[in-house]
Amino acid sequence: MTATARRPGGRAARIRAQVLTAARALLVERGYDALTVDTVAERSGVHRATVYRRWRDVGGLLADVLASALDDDWRPRDTGTLAGDLTALNEEVRAALVEDPPLTMALIAASFRSAPAATALGRFWEDRYARCGVVVDRAVARGEVPAGTDARRLLIAATAPVYHRLVLLRQPDDPGLPGDAARATALAAAAGAFDGPAPAAAERPVGER
Amino acid sequence: MTATARRPGGRAARIRAQVLTAARALLVERGYDALTVDTVAERSGVHRATVYRRWRDVGGLLADVLASALDDDWRPRDTGTLAGDLTALNEEVRAALVEDPPLTMALIAASFRSAPAATALGRFWEDRYARCGVVVDRAVARGEVPAGTDARRLLIAATAPVYHRLVLLRQPDDPGLPGDAARATALAAAAGAFDGPAPAAAERPVGER
Repeated sequence: MTATARRPGGRAARIRAQVLTAARALLVERGYDALTVDTVAERSGVHRATVYRRWRDVGGLLADVLASALDDDWRPRDTGTLAGDLTALNEEVRAALVEDPPLTMALIAASFRSAPAATALGRFWEDRYARCGVVVDRAVARGEVPAGTDARRLLIAATAPVYHRLVLLRQPDDPGLPGDAARATALAAAAGAFDGPAPAAAERPVGER
Repeated sequence: MTATARRPGGRAARIRAQVLTAARALLVERGYDALTVDTVAERSGVHRATVYRRWRDVGGLLADVLASALDDDWRPRDTGTLAGDLTALNEEVRAALVEDPPLTMALIAASFRSAPAATALGRFWEDRYARCGVVVDRAVARGEVPAGTDARRLLIAATAPVYHRLVLLRQPDDPGLPGDAARATALAAAAGAFDGPAPAAAERPVGER
């Protein structure tokens, strides 16, 4: 282990911050096609050889931009109800998707160009869903949803409509979106829609009653 | 109006079919970056000048690929229950997203590069959601969901988790996905989650009970 690796606040961390800041800025300003190790090195003021050695290519840079987003102590809000917690979560999803500069949208777009970026983005979301497990634990403790409720399925159902509308359908932003999807999911959860892990596919023919 | 425009089965239609087939093939085989008016003209055997005149650029070609997908008499299946109808719909969404060659995924990826493709893709989905309104009408008629149920919100809630998992989270394909999302949404709808148009945002503060 080198000295820089032992000191996270040291020179290596400073270089990483400079490089990732430059990569984010170039991505939102000029898009994926303008993002190269050379343009990032130039913008960051860090030596080309250093950037190549540590990040290798654009995929490595994008994956590290996403990995760096996990170095935080983010946790979901505790509002006192499942619908409230899911609404607060969806408000954060919406804010990320409509932010200016549009870094999240640029990273999503880049994930269609770069396999490392796609993997890192998936990892970012999985981490966020895992951290949100506590939202469902609290709802179970309050008796709002059944004890066997599958947190991941519930959380994906709550957030997916926000992503779908803003990322894929490209609807205009709508302040009502977060709450709509949150309340619908809370109702479904209370009715047992996410009770237990999903049954095997063979048990669920199309058109079952 | 020209003779070709009056005869949809005529030469203009034949040229359109050749060009769009070539555009689809190039997109799935070689990706967006390989798609140019020249490569499409060459592959289709149609004269470059004709392709430029009629489609102008890659955006025009992609928009027409998507517009052509609407020239069908697709309608949702009638299985006898809301959960069954939504499962059948989600099976079609899933099939499109995991198809090989991956045309739908390539079009989604292209929509992040081309504004006309994004607009055309949005139009395609809106058309599909509109055609699915009958699914909700039937559920209302059977008394499965309240009369004021908002079809579009319900349909987006049902399908969004399938898109989210396969397109954005890039999970491996899961045959249980369509039914899971369908049943959760049917339960939510029965509980009145999509009853009436969404209330104004101001009425729905974060954390409301």
